[in-house]
Amino acid sequence: MKVVKFGGTSVADAKQIKKVGNIIKQDAERKFIVVSAPGKSVQYPNKITDQLIAFYYAENKQDKDFYLQSILERFDHMTRELEIDTAIVSEIEATIEAILHHDKDEELKLDEIKAIGEDSSAKIISSYLRKIGVDATYLNPKDAGIIVSKEPGNAQILPESYDNLYRLRHETGRFVIPGFFGYTHTNELVTFSRGGSDITGSIVAAGVRASLYENFTDVDSVYTVNPNIVPHPKKIDILTYKEMRELSYAGFSVFHDEALMPAFKSHIPVAIKNTNNPDSKGTYIVRKRKHHEECVVGIASDTGFSSLYVRKYLMNREIGFGRKLFSILEDEGVSFEHAPSGIDDMSVIIRDTQLTQEKEKNMIQRIQTELNPDTVQLEHGFAMIMIVGEGMMNTPGIAHKATTALKQAGVNIRMINQGSSEVSMMFGILESDINKAIISLYDMFFQQK
Amino acid sequence: MKVVKFGGTSVADAKQIKKVGNIIKQDAERKFIVVSAPGKSVQYPNKITDQLIAFYYAENKQDKDFYLQSILERFDHMTRELEIDTAIVSEIEATIEAILHHDKDEELKLDEIKAIGEDSSAKIISSYLRKIGVDATYLNPKDAGIIVSKEPGNAQILPESYDNLYRLRHETGRFVIPGFFGYTHTNELVTFSRGGSDITGSIVAAGVRASLYENFTDVDSVYTVNPNIVPHPKKIDILTYKEMRELSYAGFSVFHDEALMPAFKSHIPVAIKNTNNPDSKGTYIVRKRKHHEECVVGIASDTGFSSLYVRKYLMNREIGFGRKLFSILEDEGVSFEHAPSGIDDMSVIIRDTQLTQEKEKNMIQRIQTELNPDTVQLEHGFAMIMIVGEGMMNTPGIAHKATTALKQAGVNIRMINQGSSEVSMMFGILESDINKAIISLYDMFFQQK
Repeated sequence: MKVVKFGGTSVADAKQIKKVGNIIKQDAERKFIVVSAPGKSVQYPNKITDQLIAFYYAENKQDKDFYLQSILERFDHMTRELEIDTAIVSEIEATIEAILHHDKDEELKLDEIKAIGEDSSAKIISSYLRKIGVDATYLNPKDAGIIVSKEPGNAQILPESYDNLYRLRHETGRFVIPGFFGYTHTNELVTFSRGGSDITGSIVAAGVRASLYENFTDVDSVYTVNPNIVPHPKKIDILTYKEMRELSYAGFSVFHDEALMPAFKSHIPVAIKNTNNPDSKGTYIVRKRKHHEECVVGIASDTGFSSLYVRKYLMNREIGFGRKLFSILEDEGVSFEHAPSGIDDMSVIIRDTQLTQEKEKNMIQRIQTELNPDTVQLEHGFAMIMIVGEGMMNTPGIAHKATTALKQAGVNIRMINQGSSEVSMMFGILESDINKAIISLYDMFFQQK
Repeated sequence: MKVVKFGGTSVADAKQIKKVGNIIKQDAERKFIVVSAPGKSVQYPNKITDQLIAFYYAENKQDKDFYLQSILERFDHMTRELEIDTAIVSEIEATIEAILHHDKDEELKLDEIKAIGEDSSAKIISSYLRKIGVDATYLNPKDAGIIVSKEPGNAQILPESYDNLYRLRHETGRFVIPGFFGYTHTNELVTFSRGGSDITGSIVAAGVRASLYENFTDVDSVYTVNPNIVPHPKKIDILTYKEMRELSYAGFSVFHDEALMPAFKSHIPVAIKNTNNPDSKGTYIVRKRKHHEECVVGIASDTGFSSLYVRKYLMNREIGFGRKLFSILEDEGVSFEHAPSGIDDMSVIIRDTQLTQEKEKNMIQRIQTELNPDTVQLEHGFAMIMIVGEGMMNTPGIAHKATTALKQAGVNIRMINQGSSEVSMMFGILESDINKAIISLYDMFFQQK
């Protein structure tokens, strides 16, 4: 029994939904279908969810009407092209009207509006599936038993949901479940964080104990390196959860890896597949894989990092220095990525998104006053490269290959962090060097083997 | 004006003291002479300070007498061979007797006993210097103005000492000052931590604003690598304070680098020289040096490290994780050397001397309970290698050379920490690989250039 999830581009229009229909029809194991809201397509430059939010926040009637009409028209086109009952569209309109006139917290209203995209998508797709002869039913998350915490826009799944979902295994037919939202114990609709259809898919896969969770998107597979830097890189056939996690950390934007946590925790294998090319075998993400001779599976990279450098003579004799430094960061609400330390030095690598000019100023002032260091400085403009592969820790020569590649590219290594993770090795370089560094590393690890 | 310090082997017997005499006579700039207690020599297998401590703790009269006689006889031989007034020996005996009958804290008595070695050394050497025609006076630390905190065995210098010492610049003649101790404001003798003659030398050099602080010991220079691993390694002619500090961290036991802090802070250059070969130019430690093409000055290594590894999924999103981990270590009184972190992992490198079985157990239990990680484990048997050199951060290819050397030696790199320090690069390997690793690195950085 499989759980299949289709992302925004896979359900963007009737043409795409027809592909989805074929994929589902092809395999009777695809019993649970989780769908996103219609995303971008050639015809539609906007995601439905963005339009729903714009509709909600629109300040005058004219704008509100514009957004609402554009949403309804898009669903109307879809139903007509799919030749299914267009009554769905007036139902959507009625639902929106009802939400606006509810007496509710604004935040909860917004969540209900945001959920319209996925919910409508699920209704349309289940109707279309029945039309093409698939015994499919729309299943509301409430009826599926997806119970969440009352945190609008950031719902957390409650553990009983898994038991509720497990019971669905024994129902006959197939179910189309809208992604992105669940219900509280007191029956309020609350959405997950953005990208939440992946969360729903992963939760359903864990709940029904699927043999496979298929995540259909618009790429053939996960690539060994960022295709924007290296054209047509090799595909990754199989990788482990841990490897996926390290790769996702930097530059691998196929999906939100944290969304996969429920599936990972239940040891459900995940397949990344392409709705537009379903015969391509895609990439499998599994708990354990056989180690090949060459253990590196991928190279990820990301820019936009800063380095906070603190030096104090005899730092390493000062018990509590690290803790005090981290406390200051914590007080400023700044989380960090890495914190390599020397004898008298400590560097803290921070994503620029964590920083504001004010936070930087406060942090540096407090470090100066409270820790009395010899030096404290913040440097921007760093890129991080992660070379990822299980078994790396016990394979001699990986660091040598990587440093050789970087030397050949003329890249100065500003930072190396190896050994803290069993499955990755991190290099810090200047942002301006990122492309040549990645091209050379890719060549070393994937072309020369 | 120079401050000269002679270590234990340089003043171990009359033959050595004659060498000291020549060195001082040779250079009229050597105005302040700081001396250790007599250390080990071929003739004397014990350090005087160790014998004084044994004497103090001896439980029966027979043992006490044995140690006392052996100490007095050694000083007696010295004075006879140097042909100076042997009355010094009876003075020493009288001082010891007086201390034992004082009504004082035991800790302060012990400090007074421990100081006898340096104090007698200074008296004998000043007497000998006068005999050979040098205008030298014994100068008690009290009269020199070396004022310290009342922490027996671990005195800290008080800032006014430097001003007191500065006044001595204008006195005529030369001064022989016993190292290792000072006096509190309430006139109590208190010793520094072990190795404290280096501390005194460094303080005097800073106080009198010496043009050079010469530290005479029994090696010709600081070596590029541990001579116990690589026979007859190249000498280091010049290195910076920062470089010395990084090298001292691991395996460079020429002296206690922290003792040099007062000299470093006052930007006094330091020369490491050999009493037994004073014409050898030694090693200069300075604030800044010219960078050569090859910036690596030395390779240090040390064994006896453990790695505490903690893994928790989504660790890097958990603000405060690092701080909480460090708090636990701090509560157990465990200071750490490095703490490289990955996305979901953190390794903390700890010296084995910081650990006991109980501390390990407590730490691991608390980490499990309070941080709820997926994995926590402590691994022993690591060695650390530091490759040191200012300018390294901006010299491409250093990491490549190092990893090439380690690969050639067949050494698996378990850890790399580069970039946290501007002047060093750290490698963690298994203890069992240390010799072949160092030999190969030495060959790469110092033989092949």
